[in-house]
Amino acid sequence: MSAPSIPRSRTMVDADRLETLVGRIFESFGMPAEDARSTARGLVAADLRGHESHGVSNYLDVYYQPGLESGLINPRPQPRILHETETTARWDGDGGIGFVVAEMAMRDAIERARRHGVGFAAVANSRHYGMAQLYSRMAVDHGMIGISMTNGGALAVPFGGADPRLGTNPISVAVPCGEEPPFVLDMATTAAAMGKVLNAHRDGASIPTEWALGTSGVPTSDPQDAMDAARLLPLGSSATGGAHKGYGLAVVVEILSGVLSGTGFGQMLGPDNLGHFLGAIRVDAFIPLAGFTAMMDALVRELRATPPAQGSSGVLVAGDPEHIAEADRRANGVPLHPRVVEMLRGYAERLEVPFDLVR
Amino acid sequence: MSAPSIPRSRTMVDADRLETLVGRIFESFGMPAEDARSTARGLVAADLRGHESHGVSNYLDVYYQPGLESGLINPRPQPRILHETETTARWDGDGGIGFVVAEMAMRDAIERARRHGVGFAAVANSRHYGMAQLYSRMAVDHGMIGISMTNGGALAVPFGGADPRLGTNPISVAVPCGEEPPFVLDMATTAAAMGKVLNAHRDGASIPTEWALGTSGVPTSDPQDAMDAARLLPLGSSATGGAHKGYGLAVVVEILSGVLSGTGFGQMLGPDNLGHFLGAIRVDAFIPLAGFTAMMDALVRELRATPPAQGSSGVLVAGDPEHIAEADRRANGVPLHPRVVEMLRGYAERLEVPFDLVR
Repeated sequence: MSAPSIPRSRTMVDADRLETLVGRIFESFGMPAEDARSTARGLVAADLRGHESHGVSNYLDVYYQPGLESGLINPRPQPRILHETETTARWDGDGGIGFVVAEMAMRDAIERARRHGVGFAAVANSRHYGMAQLYSRMAVDHGMIGISMTNGGALAVPFGGADPRLGTNPISVAVPCGEEPPFVLDMATTAAAMGKVLNAHRDGASIPTEWALGTSGVPTSDPQDAMDAARLLPLGSSATGGAHKGYGLAVVVEILSGVLSGTGFGQMLGPDNLGHFLGAIRVDAFIPLAGFTAMMDALVRELRATPPAQGSSGVLVAGDPEHIAEADRRANGVPLHPRVVEMLRGYAERLEVPFDLVR
Repeated sequence: MSAPSIPRSRTMVDADRLETLVGRIFESFGMPAEDARSTARGLVAADLRGHESHGVSNYLDVYYQPGLESGLINPRPQPRILHETETTARWDGDGGIGFVVAEMAMRDAIERARRHGVGFAAVANSRHYGMAQLYSRMAVDHGMIGISMTNGGALAVPFGGADPRLGTNPISVAVPCGEEPPFVLDMATTAAAMGKVLNAHRDGASIPTEWALGTSGVPTSDPQDAMDAARLLPLGSSATGGAHKGYGLAVVVEILSGVLSGTGFGQMLGPDNLGHFLGAIRVDAFIPLAGFTAMMDALVRELRATPPAQGSSGVLVAGDPEHIAEADRRANGVPLHPRVVEMLRGYAERLEVPFDLVR
């Protein structure tokens, strides 16, 4: 297992200093210092774990700044519980950025799980929450299995459909292990997330035809065409590949995030309005934690020891690539595209803070 | 929307009389009458809903009978709770047939959800439980979202692996609607279930190369080769198709069904030993049920109204094909392969009961 390859055009920056600067930037958009730092932590975590598409690069200047400054994203939200039982809560995120709202709701779900075995939160009226695993992973340190999913703007076609009706609707499940790093699944329910299409476009690469329909309504290998069409294919891609399954999973995410929270879906959603579904399941509500984590270690080791198929470099387990990337990037720096570095330098100059990221 | 096409070689039989006969047959294998009838109901439900691969046809004489008569499947199990909280229970299925054990555990999860908002069961030491949706759908009539999953014998390769390490590990989620039939997702986490390979083999058809590796370790279109190899591919099928996602979901099912229940996985499992994970989430623990089911109706109608893609006959929602098949088959009969009809006739003769299935 090795760290993912990094295009040579990237600039290596220090993760901690990146987080400090990005926190200052979000503070300058009107957010309280603690919330700004928490949002920065979530974005830099994505860059550390190799999910550049959910990191600092893509949305800071084009979405978060105009959103927070226009009030489309509430910089000082007061999230509140609309309805609750011992084990459940439905939240109104008060239009706040998802990083802040979802973290608060997940903390609440974890506390309910501590008291009652399991805890869930359906969150309405939130905004973009970064990578789904930010919240599922919060449960792991409490000896719990964490669940996180969110709906999103319509970018994906239903199986058999020509027009987008669903978001990329990711699902994350995080599970504690013993000596091994946690199992962390974090997947769009489309064949690929739109961020991967954007990355291919920026790098001048083509995309696999399993990923998206183009503007002409048939699968395309041109990332520009896929971006224009906004018709990502469900996981499974085709009838023979089982695309009805990826589509079905996307609808489950829509139901739990959009309908159970009362947020709505598709055309009903206001601008950038999103719902999330978060959950925590306490392992020792079923079985002693030490035995569970020992069996988890055995499971992931058995899976990794599977003989590789032809053309494969070996079997990994969900979370392995991110774990490897994070260790590497904490030690050697986070690779940022030069355009992103220049954007950050511009912010630092305007805020009159030192620009000391580059290693 | 129309009912699935039925090969002309099938014989149409009456569902109620089929259930009665199959119940008598299971009673003759040593099961109590009520458990036998419940098992028959689960098998015939699969035939009614078009899931022939989980119906009467495939396992009755080759698996259930020898299993129950040898004691590999305990015909008179006493399932019990090993550990519980208000919201959770870990069960020992006492080696009983999954239809009986899982139904009991799901009833318990529903009762916990009624009292505390959500309820879950991790079931160890069970056996084949038929189609996953049998249990998820139990929750729907209680105004709950139902969840059902199970591990199984190693028939699927991890992404990048040459050898089978996981079951087809299905996931079902059932959700109540208002005027519309319930949303019912029921999917193997492989590109296709092994039952579909068996059906293609019996019908002399080839299989899509997305489904399985053959004995030579590369994708095959020959169902015999796929059956011999027992190396089904995860949903996504290839690196570009996102097979790491189908694989990741299969591991989640393995963790919840196999590890959280203490059943184990892979080589650790005794013969046919299986674990299940079952859950019930009360809708009105989050949001009033009437508003939720009205929004569910709107969601499934919006999805079905999506303009069809080129070559598509239109968009369905999970559960639609089964709903259509069930209405048709209750009215017009269940199609059985002539070999299955002859097998049932043989049982009827030995049991000296009238053979009155054929319409």
